[in-house]
Amino acid sequence: MEGMDRCSANCVPLTPITFLERAAAVFGERISLVYGTVRFTWRETLERCTKFASALVHVGISRGDVVAVLAPNVPAMYELHFAVPMAGAVLCTLNMRHDAAMVSTLLSHSEAKIIIVDYQFLHIVKAAIEIMSKTTPTEELPRIVIVKEFDRPSSNTNGFDSASDDLEYESLLETGKLDFEIKRPKDEWGPISLNYTSGTTSRPKGVIYSHRSAYLNTLSTILLNEMSSMPVYLWTVPMFHCNGWSLTWGVAAQGGTNICQRNVTAKEIFANISLHKVTHMGGAPTVLNMIINAPINEQKPLPWKVTVMTGGAPPPSHVLYKMREFGFLIVHCYGLTETCGTATVCSWKPEWDSLPDDKQAKLKSRQGMEHVGLEGVDIKDPITMESVPADGKTMGEVMFRGNTVMSGYLKDLKATQEAFKGGWFRSGDLGVRHPDGYIELKDRSKDIIISGGENISSIEVESVLFNHPSILEAAIVGRPDDHWGETPCAFVNLKNGFSATEEEIIKFCRNNLPHYMAPRTVVFRDLPKSSTGKILKLVLKEEAKAMGSLTKRLTE
Amino acid sequence: MEGMDRCSANCVPLTPITFLERAAAVFGERISLVYGTVRFTWRETLERCTKFASALVHVGISRGDVVAVLAPNVPAMYELHFAVPMAGAVLCTLNMRHDAAMVSTLLSHSEAKIIIVDYQFLHIVKAAIEIMSKTTPTEELPRIVIVKEFDRPSSNTNGFDSASDDLEYESLLETGKLDFEIKRPKDEWGPISLNYTSGTTSRPKGVIYSHRSAYLNTLSTILLNEMSSMPVYLWTVPMFHCNGWSLTWGVAAQGGTNICQRNVTAKEIFANISLHKVTHMGGAPTVLNMIINAPINEQKPLPWKVTVMTGGAPPPSHVLYKMREFGFLIVHCYGLTETCGTATVCSWKPEWDSLPDDKQAKLKSRQGMEHVGLEGVDIKDPITMESVPADGKTMGEVMFRGNTVMSGYLKDLKATQEAFKGGWFRSGDLGVRHPDGYIELKDRSKDIIISGGENISSIEVESVLFNHPSILEAAIVGRPDDHWGETPCAFVNLKNGFSATEEEIIKFCRNNLPHYMAPRTVVFRDLPKSSTGKILKLVLKEEAKAMGSLTKRLTE
Repeated sequence: MEGMDRCSANCVPLTPITFLERAAAVFGERISLVYGTVRFTWRETLERCTKFASALVHVGISRGDVVAVLAPNVPAMYELHFAVPMAGAVLCTLNMRHDAAMVSTLLSHSEAKIIIVDYQFLHIVKAAIEIMSKTTPTEELPRIVIVKEFDRPSSNTNGFDSASDDLEYESLLETGKLDFEIKRPKDEWGPISLNYTSGTTSRPKGVIYSHRSAYLNTLSTILLNEMSSMPVYLWTVPMFHCNGWSLTWGVAAQGGTNICQRNVTAKEIFANISLHKVTHMGGAPTVLNMIINAPINEQKPLPWKVTVMTGGAPPPSHVLYKMREFGFLIVHCYGLTETCGTATVCSWKPEWDSLPDDKQAKLKSRQGMEHVGLEGVDIKDPITMESVPADGKTMGEVMFRGNTVMSGYLKDLKATQEAFKGGWFRSGDLGVRHPDGYIELKDRSKDIIISGGENISSIEVESVLFNHPSILEAAIVGRPDDHWGETPCAFVNLKNGFSATEEEIIKFCRNNLPHYMAPRTVVFRDLPKSSTGKILKLVLKEEAKAMGSLTKRLTE
Repeated sequence: MEGMDRCSANCVPLTPITFLERAAAVFGERISLVYGTVRFTWRETLERCTKFASALVHVGISRGDVVAVLAPNVPAMYELHFAVPMAGAVLCTLNMRHDAAMVSTLLSHSEAKIIIVDYQFLHIVKAAIEIMSKTTPTEELPRIVIVKEFDRPSSNTNGFDSASDDLEYESLLETGKLDFEIKRPKDEWGPISLNYTSGTTSRPKGVIYSHRSAYLNTLSTILLNEMSSMPVYLWTVPMFHCNGWSLTWGVAAQGGTNICQRNVTAKEIFANISLHKVTHMGGAPTVLNMIINAPINEQKPLPWKVTVMTGGAPPPSHVLYKMREFGFLIVHCYGLTETCGTATVCSWKPEWDSLPDDKQAKLKSRQGMEHVGLEGVDIKDPITMESVPADGKTMGEVMFRGNTVMSGYLKDLKATQEAFKGGWFRSGDLGVRHPDGYIELKDRSKDIIISGGENISSIEVESVLFNHPSILEAAIVGRPDDHWGETPCAFVNLKNGFSATEEEIIKFCRNNLPHYMAPRTVVFRDLPKSSTGKILKLVLKEEAKAMGSLTKRLTE
């Protein structure tokens, strides 16, 4: 239409940086972040991020460079979510559970120029760089910036070498200039962060988020959490996981307060909720499990309804039910690293309030529908790309489409194009669509158990196990079988002071599931987990494999 | 970064059409719209919009064509906000107060192919087309689609000629196909709607909104209203005004229910609030004034806190205070047609809750700060483009920058570029910035009164008048004066059953304002208003001009 003029008055690349600037302008004197006795205001947070961005540029970071970080949810970790993009650079958050070998792989792959590391993890990074130095010229190794304990700068920093090139976060920040001109993205499709997939099953892939996708996913995540302005957000989700499910940026957008904590324990969660009047938090089902199984003396009554966004793995309905009893309001979301975290939400309908509790929990354990910023989620036949019927039974692959889907896998265009084949992002997750349109995950395609030609959803079996009064945690994998191909094998971790036998558990499952879906083997043990609380099924699969075939006499 | 791939999986033009599709998918069986006894679900609304879009294409509407509408807040008016963009066309909503001459001007200027008109306004449109036909070939005249009263299709449709080319909304809709492929925008910067400025002072200009600006302003407006999912929204703001301050699209985005009403009276507002459990509504200060002055027998207790977004003119603090007493929660916003409606919000801080009521109302009557989707609002010297100091005193022009600013003025690139000169949208409003960063409007630059070289903010004087117990409404304009240049002239409308003299009112103002700011003339009369409730100061200025200079003996 004639008369239109695209210029700086009406065209600004979308970027979460705006959220921080606005928070400082509107909520300047409100508390942005609390960490133990440390407190900052939004004005201070903008100042600190501006100075650190300036310092990064001063030490040689250019537009598009990668700055890596390995740290728990400490203040620096939060600040880097703004400071790094403000320097025009790309933030690469590393998983705290990685060992030195993996860290060296990721630092090499991402070509990170700087690695910012919390003192607790310095030995990992030192060892990683040691590994890298065997094949990388010294001048190409990433520089280390150590983050000391904020209010205890003399904290153990074994291995920190101030005589070397190593830098220290606060000192480096102090060299920054307040009048630094923020390097906003020239193009909103430009990268803001790099999140390596958790790699529970394969070599981690570097997932690229754009400023645009981060911006839009942030607004969507705020909305699906019903997060009104000035929330108090407790950081139980690691910020390294999909940038804290977008809420690193989201708390700034809503002028809220970040309650940071180094360690996530039930005791600290309960204590922080009442101390800071927390309104929102998040956590994988394992975190919820930890909360509901906390010793009585660690529990504290909630000061008001606390909204908990859960996701990362399908939450057993039993866990959802218990959390509600505690007074938590659960928002059940689903997504992958490739969807910037949250992609769907099980929107709760008021008419469900009058259903029996177990029915409610079952409805809530579904993954729901796309959030407002996503164009669509569908369950499709991966070959024909046809949508499955909404019958709650026919399985297909979960696929996503929209602006909050990743830009691609770093240096792996082939993998990117494979993932986007057919114009949808193929998640590798299997699910069904219910008649009301809501989707429900049945399994990761690699976790499905095929026994005698029948597909067994490990999630369905696990969900039954979670209802057993003695079971704290459970995971089902396939155990190789000469006759059936595979049989379901349960790994269970019992609650303290409870007991159960293999026979009892198998019988319990047979009473609640089709016969063929019940486990044939039960192993009692602690479950291996990733730092985001995901159970590492690959480890369990190896273990089940090592057991060999179950003898034939167990056939029905 | 290598590995990125922009494709249909991760790149979809932003458009509010998505909101409707998602509402139908997630909230399909929930009520989307209520109008008297009429009720639709979101599934039905999507179906009706799809069919109407299909019908529009069938009667010859192509991508980029303008479809005009002249109607109150009836169901068709709501549906057109989706159906017209879904046909790839541009929605042009006309002001219900326009006369035939103005409607003919706007239909010509916009080159509308179709004009959809509510039966109550058919005579205006018929007369407008009659005027156009004198200079426009018949085949280029817009086709008429009449909207009859939904549940009373035999409603008076004087002048509707079914023998002619004229169409009827419901019949046309019925010809549409459900399997119509929605014509989504190819480019999110493409136009979605055309809103003519209210034209209280000059020839209306056609303000173009893009799909992108509409999308982003919608999300921002939802957030600043603290509108959680499934709101019940009462349509007191005309949808023709900035597309209902973006909430035509917003209610769909949140899966809410639209309560439509043909007429806006205090009685209907109170009745609908309790009948439908309204959670949100909106209204210019004159609507608030109507509510607080409603006869006791028309008032009903609120079923819960009702959030009211107000804007369009600075609300007198007295009105804000009274509304709060009623139990309304006021969200005070500010914006212009050129900012897609809402642009700033006076974000309320909890620490203000403990201040005295009058102080609270004064704080809330400020225009606040940019909403989350806007890059910035500033008060600048229009010549130097320097920001004024945040002293609450220095006046400057209010300027905006960001993605929710219009694309431009239709067919008037010169006016567009003038408005965007310096990279900011120049509003023509005058304001100050307070030390806490919040802005406060002082006047439209054209409404400021200059008396003896002093600037007098008409808003400041009006705000004092509103505190007078007998005054229902008031407006201040400059009256020409041989000695002072101008002197303030008050037009006041007294409350029913109350009285006051000119002398009393002048004295009241002198007791509450610097002497030179108090009116020298007081005229008692009803105030002329635009359909959005804005007082038409141009009319009053003409009247004051006609009075001539005030005699000199009144000088101090």
